Parts: sequence; C-alpha cells; structure tokens
Amino acid sequence: MKLGVVGATGLVGQKFLQLLEKEKSFQIEELKLFSRSPKFCSFLNKKIETQPLAKNTFEGLDICFFSAGQDVSLEWAPQAVKQGAIVIDNSSAFRFDPDKLLIVPEVNSHLLNYKAQIISNPNCSTIQLVVALQALEKAFGLESVHVVSLQSISGAGAGALKHLKEESLSILKEEKSYKQHEIDYAFNCVPFIGSLNAEGFCSEEVKIMTESKKILELPQLKISAFTVRVPCLNSHSEAVRFSIKKQANKDELLSALSSYVDTSELFPHARGADQEKQIFVGRVHKDPSLENSWWMWLVADNLLKGASWNGLQIAQELVKIKK
Amino acid sequence: MKLGVVGATGLVGQKFLQLLEKEKSFQIEELKLFSRSPKFCSFLNKKIETQPLAKNTFEGLDICFFSAGQDVSLEWAPQAVKQGAIVIDNSSAFRFDPDKLLIVPEVNSHLLNYKAQIISNPNCSTIQLVVALQALEKAFGLESVHVVSLQSISGAGAGALKHLKEESLSILKEEKSYKQHEIDYAFNCVPFIGSLNAEGFCSEEVKIMTESKKILELPQLKISAFTVRVPCLNSHSEAVRFSIKKQANKDELLSALSSYVDTSELFPHARGADQEKQIFVGRVHKDPSLENSWWMWLVADNLLKGASWNGLQIAQELVKIKK
Repeated sequence: MKLGVVGATGLVGQKFLQLLEKEKSFQIEELKLFSRSPKFCSFLNKKIETQPLAKNTFEGLDICFFSAGQDVSLEWAPQAVKQGAIVIDNSSAFRFDPDKLLIVPEVNSHLLNYKAQIISNPNCSTIQLVVALQALEKAFGLESVHVVSLQSISGAGAGALKHLKEESLSILKEEKSYKQHEIDYAFNCVPFIGSLNAEGFCSEEVKIMTESKKILELPQLKISAFTVRVPCLNSHSEAVRFSIKKQANKDELLSALSSYVDTSELFPHARGADQEKQIFVGRVHKDPSLENSWWMWLVADNLLKGASWNGLQIAQELVKIKK
Repeated sequence: MKLGVVGATGLVGQKFLQLLEKEKSFQIEELKLFSRSPKFCSFLNKKIETQPLAKNTFEGLDICFFSAGQDVSLEWAPQAVKQGAIVIDNSSAFRFDPDKLLIVPEVNSHLLNYKAQIISNPNCSTIQLVVALQALEKAFGLESVHVVSLQSISGAGAGALKHLKEESLSILKEEKSYKQHEIDYAFNCVPFIGSLNAEGFCSEEVKIMTESKKILELPQLKISAFTVRVPCLNSHSEAVRFSIKKQANKDELLSALSSYVDTSELFPHARGADQEKQIFVGRVHKDPSLENSWWMWLVADNLLKGASWNGLQIAQELVKIKK
C-alpha cells in the first residue's frame, strides 16, 4: 500500500499518522507526507520529511488522505485522482457533490468501490450523529431530529487551540478580564461556527443537516441543527432530541443503539471521550412533551472518529474490497 | 427599609450587595447580613460583620433575601415570615408550592402583594428563558419549547469555580492530562446538573420545565429541557427551539422580543453578558423542518438576572406596591 497524507503536520494529519502506526491496518510500502513548509514527522521510529504539493507528486500512490482545507482539496484532489490515487478528503470541498461518495463506514460502506476517485470524509459533528441516527432509523424509523452541538476548540485547528490556551491562562492569572465584548473562545460559549447564510443558519449547521440526509439516504428527513463552539480542548458533544416512527421503550432504544455506539456510560463527557475511537451515547430518555420523542447525548473525539479514524476506516474498507 | 441578606458571603449574596450599592433602589435604614461563619462584608464604604442565623434575628426586617441553599431556606424562611418579614428566596425550597409566588417581574409581577410571605426567585436558567418566552406567548402564542442549556460554573457556587480554575491551570501547565475518565468541569461538557429522576431528567431540567409552566401560567405548555454544565466562568447560554401558534416573520419576532430582552447582538456570548443585567437574545431564525418553528439563542449573567438582580427587582416591585 502506497499512501499519501496531505496536511500531515495538522491536528488531524498527526492523529492520522498515529492511528496508522497503532492500527497496522495494512502494510505500508511507501508513505508520502505533504505540508506547506517542510517539517520532519516521526513515523514508526523514522523521521519523514514533509514535502510541498507539486506536479505529478501523487504518481504511484494507492490512497491519499487530504486534511489541509477546502482550497487545497479543490486544487489538488482531482490531480491525485488523475494520477491514479483514491482520495479520502477530510474537507467539505466535494461532500455535497451528488456524484461523489460521502462515507461513514458504519452507515454506508456498501456504496464503496475501489477506483481512482474522491471519497469525502464527513464533517466531524455529522459523523458521530449519523452513526447513532442510523441505529435508530434501522430499528424504529426516524421522524425528526433536532441537534445542538457543543464543539471543542481542536475542531477549529491548532492555531485556535493555542490561542485558547493562552487566553485561558491570561484570564486565570487575572491579566485579562473575563468580561469582554469581543468574541473569544476562552471560558466562553460562541453560538456560531463558520459563516452565516441568508436563512440564518451557519455553515457548520448546514453541513450537519445536508450531510446527514445524504449519508442516511433520507433526503426528506426533518433535521435541524444549532452549533456552538465551547471551550473544551477536544471531543464534540451533541444534545439530540429526536422522534421515531414506532413506539419503543428505553431498553429497546439502548439495545438498537448499542450495536453502533458505546452506551455503557450514563454521562459520557468530552474529556472521557478524548483519544477514544468510539462514539459514546448516554442520557437516553423519553421527552414526554411529544409522542415517540426522546433525548440523547452523544460524545466523540472529533479528531479521531470525527476525522482521522473515519478516514482510516474508509481506507480499511477499500482494502477489503480490493482483496 | 430594613433589609436582611442570608448567604451574604456567597457568589449571589455578594452580587446582591453590589447591586444594592449601585442601584440605590431604596433608602436602607438597616442592613443585616448573615453567613455560617462571621466575616466582614464591605457596603457603601462601611464594614458590616455577618452574623449566624439565630432565634428572633429577623424581628423588624421588612424584606430578607435568602441565598444559602434549600436546607437553610426550609428551616429559616418560615421563621422570618413569622417575624414579619417578606422573604425573597433564591433556593428551590418553595418554588413548586402552588400557594407560593414564583416571580419574574417582567412576566408576572401582577401577582405580587405586600405582606409577610415567602416569594421564590426562580432558577437561574428558568429566568432568562421565561422572559423571552413571555414575549413570544403574548405576541404569537407558544406551541412547544425545547431548550438545551449551557450553564456556567458560577452557577455551581464559589467552591466549584475555585476548583475549575485550579484544574484548568493544571491542564494548561500540563501537570494533569486532559484525558480523564472521571467527571470534572475543566475544559469539559458535563451532561447533567443536579440529581436524576426516574424518568431520566435531572433536577435542573425539572426546574426549568416546572417553573416555566408556573411563571408563564401555561400548565399545558409542551416544554422539554436538557441541561449541560460547560466550562464558562459566568453567564448561562440557551439554545431554544420553539414553535408558535401564528405564522410570523423574523422582523415580527424580533420586534416582539425586543420589548423584553436585548436583541441588538446577532451573536451574544457568555463573556459579553457577564456583569450585565439584561437578557440577550440572538440568532433568531426559522427552523424550516417544522411549521412555525424557530431557533433562538439566549444569554444572561446567571448571578445577576439569573439570581440577585431578579431578587432585587422583586423587592423594587414590592416597594412600589407599598407606596
């Protein structure tokens, strides 16, 4: 297996390399790492120097994982495909393209085929949601979904995480006042992620709503999202209120969910999910205000299941098909 | 006006004293401060020593503000009433008693009368919610409400706030690992506040649902809450999805809301609301997944409008009635 990683020095790229080392999913014959400026990355006790993207650089690669933002993917992913590689793209560049795959292996790996193409990795907050929703759809049929996400700062990248730590320290040392009119993430809750559209939804919310419908193959699903950036270092949480088409009790719900997610904790929390590959679902309970309505709480490591691990799972599925 | 403050050294008690100084709501002839162990509190450039609660200690007081927890209120508030005082109680001890008032002045001050009695101050997360809901109920009629609250650590008291700061510092200094199985608030999201009931709701959620129905005088309102503790120092945030009985556009909603709350910011946030008496509402937009459904985002200082300021507003209303 000849692999490439574009954005190898980023938070997600680094997690992808750590997973590659640990999971030993396949024999790696060649590993090409790409980043804007050259840096050394350690991999299996070797130092590999990253290289900038250049013409014909993807020649000979089987699979290339992209996590360097939408612009890089738009420019370079089609070239990688032309040069014969399968691209697993962590950006949103191609997710809404009806001709391109958007894959969460637990939900729709049956769509995969082994050919040079772009396969999109969904948005971090979508991935953890759709796995739980798929469990509910299969067992009871989904009627409607309302999700409020509480998304950690690692999802905004290494720069945002560094800034959060510095700002938090300034506040704790009382060098800076907590009271602040300007929007800053430290010890704060900020009610938007991305840019706002004409309907009043921000781009992160549009991603959750659009991607979930595509992955679940439920174009008519009533789904609405509200996304908030919270001052967690890592792991995204989601409070989900949903209605199902059949009457069910809590044990039946937990039983359906537990085939897809980890339901062993009543109160899963961000720091508990950090560095874990699973999706944790807790606080499953009925909302008596509406028929067949329920609440649940989802937590997952946004850099792992929300990005690198989902990407590596796609690669593993592709290798299975090839064999 | 002869005033008492029980729990004068706590976070809410201190805010109450600061407001008393600043607002000059009424001439204070006497100010009695109570706390478990004696401490000096500064008030209008004087030092006042707190005293422990004792028999007949409320004699002669007109109004006594209680913020020392449910147990203290249960034991001492009825005694204060017997001794002729009006109690404004910040605990949940008497909120659900159908014979006792639960007041948010913007919503139901018409119920107030000036006599020795216990008047409950609602839960912090309820207060900011019902003011906005009252605006919507009056203009359009409320059909259903689903609220996810993101509640700051100051709401858990001074001890929790101190612990949060220490833990956060340890993590930032890398003395402690972010990854932790045990539940801790630092840089975390914790999906419950209070204790869990048989239906799977936690006590903070039950407070929001029960108190809102009582204050709004809408016993049949379909309201469901999910409460989360987030690592903000102060100010509670709420993502609210609601349905109204009439068709309306965004301008009509904002116009109705702006008579009750501050709608000047599109993205109000916790640090912006800190130390402010207003309730801020932003991100009002339609949820197209269901008819006449909307999202909004509420933020308020839980120690001010969520506790001390609402209590002082009640006292101000009482003084108006007396005159």
